[in-house]
Order: sequence, then C-alpha cells, then structure tokens
Amino acid sequence: MEASDDKKTFDFVNIISRSEKPREKGLSMVLDKGFGLNQVQDLMEAAHCIDIIKLAWATPRMLSERMIKRKISLYRENNILVGNGGTLLEIVYKQKKTEQFFEYCCEIGVELIEVSNGVLSMSIEDKADIIRSAKSKGMSVISEVGKKNPLEDSMLTLQDRINEAESDLKAGAHYVIIEAREGGRSIGVYDDSGGLKEDMAKTLVDELGIENIMFEAPDKSQQARLILLFGSDVNLGNIRPEDVIALETLRRGIRGDTFGKL
Amino acid sequence: MEASDDKKTFDFVNIISRSEKPREKGLSMVLDKGFGLNQVQDLMEAAHCIDIIKLAWATPRMLSERMIKRKISLYRENNILVGNGGTLLEIVYKQKKTEQFFEYCCEIGVELIEVSNGVLSMSIEDKADIIRSAKSKGMSVISEVGKKNPLEDSMLTLQDRINEAESDLKAGAHYVIIEAREGGRSIGVYDDSGGLKEDMAKTLVDELGIENIMFEAPDKSQQARLILLFGSDVNLGNIRPEDVIALETLRRGIRGDTFGKL
Amino acid sequence: MEASDDKKTFDFVNIISRSEKPREKGLSMVLDKGFGLNQVQDLMEAAHCIDIIKLAWATPRMLSERMIKRKISLYRENNILVGNGGTLLEIVYKQKKTEQFFEYCCEIGVELIEVSNGVLSMSIEDKADIIRSAKSKGMSVISEVGKKNPLEDSMLTLQDRINEAESDLKAGAHYVIIEAREGGRSIGVYDDSGGLKEDMAKTLVDELGIENIMFEAPDKSQQARLILLFGSDVNLGNIRPEDVIALETLRRGIRGDTFGKL
Repeated sequence: MEASDDKKTFDFVNIISRSEKPREKGLSMVLDKGFGLNQVQDLMEAAHCIDIIKLAWATPRMLSERMIKRKISLYRENNILVGNGGTLLEIVYKQKKTEQFFEYCCEIGVELIEVSNGVLSMSIEDKADIIRSAKSKGMSVISEVGKKNPLEDSMLTLQDRINEAESDLKAGAHYVIIEAREGGRSIGVYDDSGGLKEDMAKTLVDELGIENIMFEAPDKSQQARLILLFGSDVNLGNIRPEDVIALETLRRGIRGDTFGKL
Repeated sequence: MEASDDKKTFDFVNIISRSEKPREKGLSMVLDKGFGLNQVQDLMEAAHCIDIIKLAWATPRMLSERMIKRKISLYRENNILVGNGGTLLEIVYKQKKTEQFFEYCCEIGVELIEVSNGVLSMSIEDKADIIRSAKSKGMSVISEVGKKNPLEDSMLTLQDRINEAESDLKAGAHYVIIEAREGGRSIGVYDDSGGLKEDMAKTLVDELGIENIMFEAPDKSQQARLILLFGSDVNLGNIRPEDVIALETLRRGIRGDTFGKL
Repeated sequence: MEASDDKKTFDFVNIISRSEKPREKGLSMVLDKGFGLNQVQDLMEAAHCIDIIKLAWATPRMLSERMIKRKISLYRENNILVGNGGTLLEIVYKQKKTEQFFEYCCEIGVELIEVSNGVLSMSIEDKADIIRSAKSKGMSVISEVGKKNPLEDSMLTLQDRINEAESDLKAGAHYVIIEAREGGRSIGVYDDSGGLKEDMAKTLVDELGIENIMFEAPDKSQQARLILLFGSDVNLGNIRPEDVIALETLRRGIRGDTFGKL
C-alpha cells in the first residue's frame, strides 16, 4: 500500500538519496486545514515524502469525528504521524480540559502532541509542565516557539527563543518548531515579504542543533533557501499539500533551485 | 447526509455558538470556479459552514450541463443555495436574453439571482428593473455594488455606493454584495495590498445595516479583520474552498486571530 | 468521454468561438506538479480547454510508474498531449542518459519533449542537437528559452533570446516557450511584481511569429493582459489546474477582464 514500495517513474535518473521513513531527520510536515477523503487519497501517492500531518489549529472541531477518524486511519496506514495544532492545545488549556484532550487524542489516533504558547501568555515553566504531562502518558511531544501576532512575536528576542526552546527540549520535546503560521510572513525567521533572516536561522541551528529544529516554511522560496543553507535533511513544516512532491524534488536536487547545488 | 448532524471531533471544546442553516446572518458564500465532483464531495464535509455557492462569473458556460446539474443537486441536498455570477447576468442582459436566463436558472436549480453592473454601464433604474423582474418570477435576488475595473471602481464615491445599494434593497434585493473580485485588491473596501479601508466598511454598515451587506473577502486577513470589527455574524463572500473550515474557526473564536477576542 | 461533446450549460449565451482540439493556436498548457487521480478525474471535465499537460520538472521521478501511467492514459483518452518538464531533460543530459530518456518517454506515453537550458550552461548548438535527436525518433519537440535563476536570466538580452528561439525553431521545435517558472516573477517578460513587459513581449511576437511562441503565464492578470494584447488565440502555459476554466472564459470574452473587449 505504501507508495514507496513501487517502482518509480524515470528510476534510471540518479537523485540524492535520503533515509526512508520513519526518518530521524529531513522530516516534512504537511498542514491539513480540513482535507476531504478524495484529496487525502490523492495525497497518499506522495506518502513516502510525508512524515507528519498536522491537523491545523482547531479545524477538526468543525468536522465530524467519523470523517476525522477515517482520515487518521489513512494517514497511519501510510506510516504518517498525526499531530494536533498548537492552538487547539492552548484552547483546551485555557478551558482546563488538558487531561480530557490527551485522552481523546489517544482515542482517535493523534499520537503527536504539539505544545505551543502562540496566543496565550504561558510561562516557560507551565509549558514544560504540559510537555512532561503529555510525555508521561506515553505520547510524543513537539513544541512550538513564537507568537501568532507579528507585533507580539517581534518582542521576543533571539535569546528568549533559544531559552524557551532549550527548556522545551529539556522537558522532553522531540524537537522545536519555529513558528511561521500558514502565511510565512513577519514572524520568527521571516521578514515582511517572507524572506529568510539567515543570521537568525543560523544562530538557532548553532545553538539548538539542526536535528532539534523544524522550520515552518510554507513558501517554495523559503524551502529552497533553507535546503541550500542547511542541506537536504533540514526539517520543514507547514507544507501545502500541492507542494509536497515539489519539496521532495528540492531535497533530492532535481528542481532548478537545487539541481547541481547540493 | 448533512455533516452538521454528526458528532464533531473534540466536541468537548467550547466554541462560540452560531445559528444553524438556513441562517439569517453570518452567511458564508463560496466561489465555485469550476469544481469537479470529487472536490465537491470533499467540500460537503463542511456543508454546515456553507450557506451559498456562487457559480463564478460565466464559468458554467464552459462546462457540461450534465455535470453542473449533478453539482447543483449535491449542493441542494446539503442545504446550500446556488447562485449565478453577476457577470453572466450582465452578458445575458447585453445579449437581450434575460428572460431566457431566468427560466433556465429555474430549470437547473440556480435559485439565487445575482444582479450586478460590474462591467456594463447600467443605470440604477435599469438594475432595479432587473431585480424586480427576477423577484416577480419567485426567485431570490442579491445585488452587487462596485466595478470590476479598479480605475472605474475608484470613481464611485462612497455616497454613490450607498445610493445604489439602497435602490437595490428597495427593489427587493435580499442583501447587497460589496465587490472585491476573486483577488481582493484595489476595489471597494480594499486597498492595493488587500488591506481593509475600515472607515469605508464602517460607514457602509452604519448606513445600510450589517444584515443587508455581504463583504467579498477572499483573504484570511480580510476575513479576520471583518470578524473582529463586526462580529462572528458578518456575511462574507468569495471564500476559497480550501478556506471554508478555516473561516468557520475564525467565526467560532478558535483560530489564533480571534481566539479570546470575540 | 470527451467533455466537449456534451451540451454546455447556458448554451444560449453567445461566446467567442475558437477552434476545437487538436488546435494549431490558442493552446493552453497546464502544469501538473503531481496531481492525484481524483484531481485528474475532476480536471477532465475541462479537457476541452486543455491542449497540453506538462509533468512539472522532475516531479514524476518521485511518483510510482503505475500511477503516472494511469494518469497519462487518462490525459491521452481526453486528447491531451503529455510533455516532460525541461529540467528533467537537463538532468538526464548531464547524466548522459538522453537516449534512455527518449525511449522511456515513448514507452510511458510522453509524446512531447521539452528541451530547455534553464539551469545548465548549454550552447545553442548543443540544444539544437538534442532537438534534432528527439525529432529523429519521431517525437514532437518544444523548446524553452530563459534561465530559472532571475539573475542569470537578466543577463540574457532580448536579441539573445530571439537568436536562441530561431535556432530552436530551425532545428525543428514546434514552438518556443518563454520561461516564467511556476511563480511568474522576475523572469523573461515579467517584472518583479509579475507585471508584463509589453515591449519585450511584442518584440518577441513580431520577430518570431505569434504561432511560434507560448508564454508561461501563471497569474490571471498575466493571462488577461496577453489575451488583450495578442487576442484569444495566444498560446499560454503553466496554467494552474483551478484556473483552466477561468482562462477559457477570458479567451471567450465572458469574464469581466475581457468581456466586450475582444
């Protein structure tokens, strides 16, 4: 069933090799804003290029449990980890339903818990507590660093981000996502036109380790730049479904932007 | 069949409540540029978030009647009203086939007639005549105010828009759409970069009544801004299919932009 | 099976007439970045508006041969020519596997060979050799002029482009594509914001002949501008799947931008 077992088209063409799933590095995470089942079926042709699907913010709250369960089953059959959006965790935290949230995630097959404080004011310590709590239930955890509001985000110093990321990792987060939202503008490592702040990205990688970071990178130019800077095996998130295969060609050195440059 | 009857995912999470369909306010209108049947099937998982589907401008003219009829059936089974694009009405008006147009719309299940003068020079009186004519055939009517060409649109004063909208409403239009096109730039209430002209939007709402206006708002930032200004139940149009669920999360206060702010 | 045989919706509405497929002019080429089969099925409702599908750059290399073959079959049943992306040709050229590439294209049903030098430094003479080689195997050939890197592309003069295009045509290329990539910015006939450089476009048309050129034109504003400048039957490429029907309405004079202007 897994598409990676099939003979590929033009398989006599040499490409940069990468590890197979489950991967330790070079992860690609796709943002699912409410895909329907036909679209998911189509997307699974590229399942070998997708490590994680994030059910975007609180979108599942508007969709039927029946449908979300079928979707999660399809993802898991294709060896894709399914995670929640950080905003949903923040909402249940504010509503004091975190325990119920973890149990329900287990029940429906959401195995990867994302812990963020992109909207709420939440101390580093409280965030670490939530991470430890999810870990203690046997779940995998990732954390996110950054604010959803560009003005609030701009008030975080680089050192603030590093401190928070280090605290999250110490509490048990598998890796830290650098927030960029669906839009990839004016937040974290991106400027107002979506350009990469290279010095900032490099410092984060130097301080935290490339294997401990995932950059949200919705735009092709962002993906290409990060791959040229950090190599094929940089972890990238918030990929649009129509760009999943395109991203893999960037990683493999078979798109114009990276051909002959990796 | 209607997805809203199903148990929702994470249904223990509290959200802002809204009226069920058929709604009087807080309508969401999706622009169908020629969706295929698999895509429509997927979209119907979010049918409870969609009040109206507009068959964009004259796109149905290029598609088979067989397929459009099946699509309209699917929409109507899911309690979604189907409307024509205003440009198609303007074309048949110019070709002196308005009567034939109304009859054919009835025949294929297009129940909502949009009357616009976005391309043609059409007097307010002629527009009102068309609205009355459609009403007399038992159809629901909405009107659109604004020009498709940014230069022409910029020559309409705010008072021109209010006068025309009032005339349309008086002639029987159910509500008035504020034109923004598919792109949402340089027209009506949006500036050249898609930012909302808040004073203009507020004056329109004050003069016409929030329940009598639908703002076309293709971009997320426009949707979020209008919801923060006018509340969850502002009528919004030209929503992209992939953004329907995202819009509903904005209205319900469970996306970063509106979480804790409504 | 071909949708063009069906009775169209609103078929009493007069539109600008165009030749049927296979067309000699007014071609529309769609960029397939890895569509799944449900999406292809949907897209085939508009098959009468699509002349060519280009399998974008090296994306097929990441997909199963089984799936690509099924996709190509669907396209061919609907009288759509299938072509490779130029970057893939450049990769096999560099890997000295051009002959194997041509044979494999024949085997899987890729009938249209695109020859480009958008990434590699390849002399005009070498490019012409590849074109002649593909022609000698009975394949149709198109060529592409322009560089994928904006900086490199900016160093090509207009005369360079004309010389190369003339050499390609003389070697047997059916027509020449003016490179714009998926993004349509800062390359060839487009400026940094995607605006059309009209003088440049006109000179290319004057020197090479409108029937010998296809403009890549991913954005609606680019498509509308080129149709208004050169007429309904300008050849346009890199159309997004969701815009295929919209483009046809532009060509037929039934969208706001071209209604009453062709």
